[in-house]
Amino acid sequence: MEHLFTILGSHYDEMVSIRRFLHENPELSFQEVHTPLYIANYHRKLGLEVREGVGGRGVVATLKGGKPGKTVALRADFDALAIQEQNDIPYKSKVDGVMHACGHDGHTATLLVLAKALVTMKEELQGNIVFIHQFAEELAPGGAKPMIEDGCLDGVDVIFGTHLWAPTPLGDILVRNGAIMAAADRLEITIQGKGGHGAEPHQSVDSILVASQFITQLQTVVSRRIDPLKSAVVSIGHFEAINPFNVIAEKVELKGTVRTFDEEVRTQIEHEIERILKSVCEGFHATYEYAFTRGYPPVVNHKKETQFLADVACQLSEVHNVIECPPLMVGEDFAYYLEKVPGTFFITGAKDPAWKEAYPHHHAQFNFDERAMLIAAKTLGLATLKYLKQSKKI
Amino acid sequence: MEHLFTILGSHYDEMVSIRRFLHENPELSFQEVHTPLYIANYHRKLGLEVREGVGGRGVVATLKGGKPGKTVALRADFDALAIQEQNDIPYKSKVDGVMHACGHDGHTATLLVLAKALVTMKEELQGNIVFIHQFAEELAPGGAKPMIEDGCLDGVDVIFGTHLWAPTPLGDILVRNGAIMAAADRLEITIQGKGGHGAEPHQSVDSILVASQFITQLQTVVSRRIDPLKSAVVSIGHFEAINPFNVIAEKVELKGTVRTFDEEVRTQIEHEIERILKSVCEGFHATYEYAFTRGYPPVVNHKKETQFLADVACQLSEVHNVIECPPLMVGEDFAYYLEKVPGTFFITGAKDPAWKEAYPHHHAQFNFDERAMLIAAKTLGLATLKYLKQSKKI
Amino acid sequence: MEHLFTILGSHYDEMVSIRRFLHENPELSFQEVHTPLYIANYHRKLGLEVREGVGGRGVVATLKGGKPGKTVALRADFDALAIQEQNDIPYKSKVDGVMHACGHDGHTATLLVLAKALVTMKEELQGNIVFIHQFAEELAPGGAKPMIEDGCLDGVDVIFGTHLWAPTPLGDILVRNGAIMAAADRLEITIQGKGGHGAEPHQSVDSILVASQFITQLQTVVSRRIDPLKSAVVSIGHFEAINPFNVIAEKVELKGTVRTFDEEVRTQIEHEIERILKSVCEGFHATYEYAFTRGYPPVVNHKKETQFLADVACQLSEVHNVIECPPLMVGEDFAYYLEKVPGTFFITGAKDPAWKEAYPHHHAQFNFDERAMLIAAKTLGLATLKYLKQSKKI
Amino acid sequence: MEHLFTILGSHYDEMVSIRRFLHENPELSFQEVHTPLYIANYHRKLGLEVREGVGGRGVVATLKGGKPGKTVALRADFDALAIQEQNDIPYKSKVDGVMHACGHDGHTATLLVLAKALVTMKEELQGNIVFIHQFAEELAPGGAKPMIEDGCLDGVDVIFGTHLWAPTPLGDILVRNGAIMAAADRLEITIQGKGGHGAEPHQSVDSILVASQFITQLQTVVSRRIDPLKSAVVSIGHFEAINPFNVIAEKVELKGTVRTFDEEVRTQIEHEIERILKSVCEGFHATYEYAFTRGYPPVVNHKKETQFLADVACQLSEVHNVIECPPLMVGEDFAYYLEKVPGTFFITGAKDPAWKEAYPHHHAQFNFDERAMLIAAKTLGLATLKYLKQSKKI
Repeated sequence: MEHLFTILGSHYDEMVSIRRFLHENPELSFQEVHTPLYIANYHRKLGLEVREGVGGRGVVATLKGGKPGKTVALRADFDALAIQEQNDIPYKSKVDGVMHACGHDGHTATLLVLAKALVTMKEELQGNIVFIHQFAEELAPGGAKPMIEDGCLDGVDVIFGTHLWAPTPLGDILVRNGAIMAAADRLEITIQGKGGHGAEPHQSVDSILVASQFITQLQTVVSRRIDPLKSAVVSIGHFEAINPFNVIAEKVELKGTVRTFDEEVRTQIEHEIERILKSVCEGFHATYEYAFTRGYPPVVNHKKETQFLADVACQLSEVHNVIECPPLMVGEDFAYYLEKVPGTFFITGAKDPAWKEAYPHHHAQFNFDERAMLIAAKTLGLATLKYLKQSKKI
Repeated sequence: MEHLFTILGSHYDEMVSIRRFLHENPELSFQEVHTPLYIANYHRKLGLEVREGVGGRGVVATLKGGKPGKTVALRADFDALAIQEQNDIPYKSKVDGVMHACGHDGHTATLLVLAKALVTMKEELQGNIVFIHQFAEELAPGGAKPMIEDGCLDGVDVIFGTHLWAPTPLGDILVRNGAIMAAADRLEITIQGKGGHGAEPHQSVDSILVASQFITQLQTVVSRRIDPLKSAVVSIGHFEAINPFNVIAEKVELKGTVRTFDEEVRTQIEHEIERILKSVCEGFHATYEYAFTRGYPPVVNHKKETQFLADVACQLSEVHNVIECPPLMVGEDFAYYLEKVPGTFFITGAKDPAWKEAYPHHHAQFNFDERAMLIAAKTLGLATLKYLKQSKKI
Repeated sequence: MEHLFTILGSHYDEMVSIRRFLHENPELSFQEVHTPLYIANYHRKLGLEVREGVGGRGVVATLKGGKPGKTVALRADFDALAIQEQNDIPYKSKVDGVMHACGHDGHTATLLVLAKALVTMKEELQGNIVFIHQFAEELAPGGAKPMIEDGCLDGVDVIFGTHLWAPTPLGDILVRNGAIMAAADRLEITIQGKGGHGAEPHQSVDSILVASQFITQLQTVVSRRIDPLKSAVVSIGHFEAINPFNVIAEKVELKGTVRTFDEEVRTQIEHEIERILKSVCEGFHATYEYAFTRGYPPVVNHKKETQFLADVACQLSEVHNVIECPPLMVGEDFAYYLEKVPGTFFITGAKDPAWKEAYPHHHAQFNFDERAMLIAAKTLGLATLKYLKQSKKI
Repeated sequence: MEHLFTILGSHYDEMVSIRRFLHENPELSFQEVHTPLYIANYHRKLGLEVREGVGGRGVVATLKGGKPGKTVALRADFDALAIQEQNDIPYKSKVDGVMHACGHDGHTATLLVLAKALVTMKEELQGNIVFIHQFAEELAPGGAKPMIEDGCLDGVDVIFGTHLWAPTPLGDILVRNGAIMAAADRLEITIQGKGGHGAEPHQSVDSILVASQFITQLQTVVSRRIDPLKSAVVSIGHFEAINPFNVIAEKVELKGTVRTFDEEVRTQIEHEIERILKSVCEGFHATYEYAFTRGYPPVVNHKKETQFLADVACQLSEVHNVIECPPLMVGEDFAYYLEKVPGTFFITGAKDPAWKEAYPHHHAQFNFDERAMLIAAKTLGLATLKYLKQSKKI
């Protein structure tokens, strides 16, 4: 294991320069062209088997070990966001309105240099390692699903992945058995009343009032209808009824989001929202359209693999704390991999100790402490080696 | 009286052509230039004393009778609306985006030709007649107030006015003692919450929810807080919170209208709305801005003059019904005249019997049966002559 | 007419003693035995034709005039209330828990002595007078309906009635064309949820919450659903869910009242309340029972007869003001008579000028200025004589 | 350890007969007289040091081991409930209206016989055992607090306790690190409006409407104001406004409960409820009284001791499953012990396999499978012995 850490440490500068190159050249989800090419070339130079265009724009590189054994998959996503970078850094995004504001540049650099390190141990390797470079994590329906359908998990026994996380201090690793990230779904609702003159409510159906009553009752989904021991959020963020002051609004458009950690609760909420909407509209002689668009399912970590990863992380001298964290309300299509194979997704703290507070992910001034990449690489690398070694024994 | 009717009848064609000329050349409220000039010239040709620029853009013409007596004022408004006419008529508006969509062209033509008829009776006239041509009725604060302040009611004993009304059948005259038109006020409200991520309601103040609760409670103004024997309407017609689906809305802008027929109720409602708004915001850690902008006060007809006008209208063979109507929820700055002198405002039916339904006032296809102008002229003329004659006797 | 006033004046003491006798001996609605007997005997002694048991417990006495003509009906009700009198007066109720707390004792005394006065004018009388003594006004379905069905209005051309009214000053007569008293209906609602432990809302249906949402939405009946120019009240006065603090309430019982002046609005409200109730229950997986029990319809005065009565009242020297009043929200089964024959119901002020404020009707300390009986008798008597005389002329 | 199990097994009949004796002779919280006497006598016969009247009515018996070591406390509660038993069993409660409907009879029998067994091992015992027999668990403020203040935990290093649980199958042990039972607090609210006639809402303040709006807004405590990852329940179970149908309700009384697992959330909810109440009342011109009465705090198990207990339980052949359970929303004053010393509270399944469903705790037909007592005794006994032995080693 010491060998792995030594090599990774000696290539930290390369890791940083790869990350910065990617940071300067971000590409939007489902529009990635140069990034997957860059990744494929890197792996090819290392001598790995490379498959491009997996599920569309993904890259899968396979390292076959010198000895037989299990297969570990490691995943990094590589898409960027439609944000105009506002950082004042030498490696600032060169693409107008596009920015690596979520750290996927770091994920990719981590995985590439980890491959370079593991290649040196090819001969003794008791099994295989699959490097999954995924496109389009940021935009549902995401790249994970088509890559899986295109075979990226074939023969894989376990998968590990991590997210560099700017709000969490460098040196902390967050793990969680069960749901670690939420299902993040989308609501779109139109309430159709009957427009009219503001002075004649009885001739009209006041869609603004109907929507207000709906939103009022919507609170009961979380407060009364779901198990209080289960977590959920229902938020309406958009309410649109743009009219002159002296009319009754013909219709209202609402948009919102639902967050859950449990498929049963998710489905229950989908139905309860429509039940409330339907009944409020009927009570007011209004009609509605309702769309509940499922985003990614919750990321549900597997117990054994999570414990395994936590134990591995504890062995790193750079890791000060391995913490069982509460779930995060954000979404991730890593969820799909864990529906197919065992594994775990963990959080690698990436807040520079010098910062009082980090800018949140998706912020125009987002950045992370690049040393987190080394911690992530060591954790993923050590987990991979230990897993292959242990599995062998059995 | 027969003489008056005969002359009016013989000038009906002129009335129509004046109306159509004005219809082709509409001018917006507070921007009237050519219309008042046209009116002033017409009266001047008839030999009346004419005062221009009254209160800004108004025209006042005075016909002094040959014998001493009281003074009757008659009022017509002459501004148009910011509407693109969609009628297919030979006299369609020539001004892009401006249209006489409320019949003020007809009011003006009526009054001008009535003046021409009354001038012929100047010698026997037992008193004086003041023709008030008012600008800017459509746009609060309106033209009536400044014209009154500029003396248009000086020496006036009584005032009469009418509105040609397309939804009411030709041949009907609607009268009402007391409030015939509402106070029409304007609400503008900003509710300031605290924006955030849709998954983190506890870190935010959900301004859409606050506004929804406010609108829900707002219903209690009419249902519980005002005397159920008094009429009032509170309507929110505009709700604006345009955001991505997955946020908590930082703020909401609301606009609405309040209609009342009674100054005490009006003031009570102004205060109760703020009471509700303030308390809901406090309950949710939100803040607000509140503007209640008073439009015109209610048009409150005087009892004796209304009865008088109703009796006059009954004598016209063209008038089939004189109906005591319920109040209308619309506003009119004729209200200000009636605060100063006795008088009455009535509705002259102007729906062509051939129409199944008329387009509402302020509609791009609004029009009216031009014969209503003749009925209006006869009613106003007869009322004027009878009033002067009767008053003389006393 | 002077004759009538003189006789009535000379019998004022008898009027007072009859009223006080009745006051001491009140009988509940539908339980009247001695009162109708007393009334019948009184009329029989006067020599009138008397019919007892009309519609159950009513008494109808007919005075046939010496000359032919129309028939006027006058009505007084005679039932008392289930209230324990708390007045300290010599003629306090002798019946425990029963009290003439609404002035029906006064109505009866007024009509009896008026009959005595009119009998003296029998020979010159140009028509007939029917004295309708009605039982059970206080308790729907009331006595008016069965008395009408039993013929009390047969041959009647017009009907007059009055209510002595303690909150209105002695000397005032209140009249109103159209609806003067409201339809007063009764709501009884059960909302059935599903009881449970207070800590397990998701296993239950919280009927208190459902009822709260229902009451919240109920405000929109008056605020949005009915014509704002029409008056209506919907009030829930009773909410019953008596439980330990730590449960979810299985069910809620609500009671309330609806007041309207217009049959169409009344029916609309009946249906809209159920629409709201049904939809709110459906939205929350609850069920309901709904009973809307119609009380008396609105008392709708006839125009000509109301004007006639107002003119008559103006001629009385004791009447200081004849006022057109706003409608009262209380109910009266006089409504049924006016559905059958023309007529009017008016208010006779009965507040002793010495009182700062009168106790409201139905209060345990209710009383009225007995001089109001004389004013009522004179007004009803004069109206009767004038009506018969004028009708004759035609 | 085998020795312990053998002795306990051989005394199972005694355990049952003690439990049945206590079941026949239940005593209400804070009224326990004979039960603590019985307990004290039992321990005294075993030769233990006994302290009576601890904190009021508690009994503490101490078994000093033959060798030095740590001190383990074991706790059983012994009060009953104000419920009329409806079981048809030979050992039915002999006290009218009082019943051991929560299994505290079983807790006591378990602990007594466990003491008898442990006494036989006194000489080899490496430390001491404190048997805490607590009064008044069912009724806040409970007996735990005064017993602690009276020194029952003095010198104690660790505490263990269990609840026999009828809904959980015999053979299951439920454990949970962190909060296993909720804080269960009590709400009492009076909303004071202004009574009046149902037809005159504008003269009144409708307290039923105010309370309904309050309950509607109350939903936002859970839906918006607390961290969605934290669990909480706010339920109003009692709504009292008993009035005739045709009034406006003068006041409303509400009662409810709040359940939380976290002191910060608990305090936040206490304040947010009052914030909503205050603002809604102000918005409606109403006033209020608010009492938030804290019940027991959450029972928060300690991590190490919970893991220890779980490991112990796994060693029993009668225990089929050791399950990490979600927290229970009920309250327990075991909470106070765990605020002072490390320890854990666990659930011992007590549902007879022959039952389809058990009656819930506090039900008049509640009962449990008595074999659960033996499992509880073995678990507690083994945990005690292992703890003392291990601690010794260190």
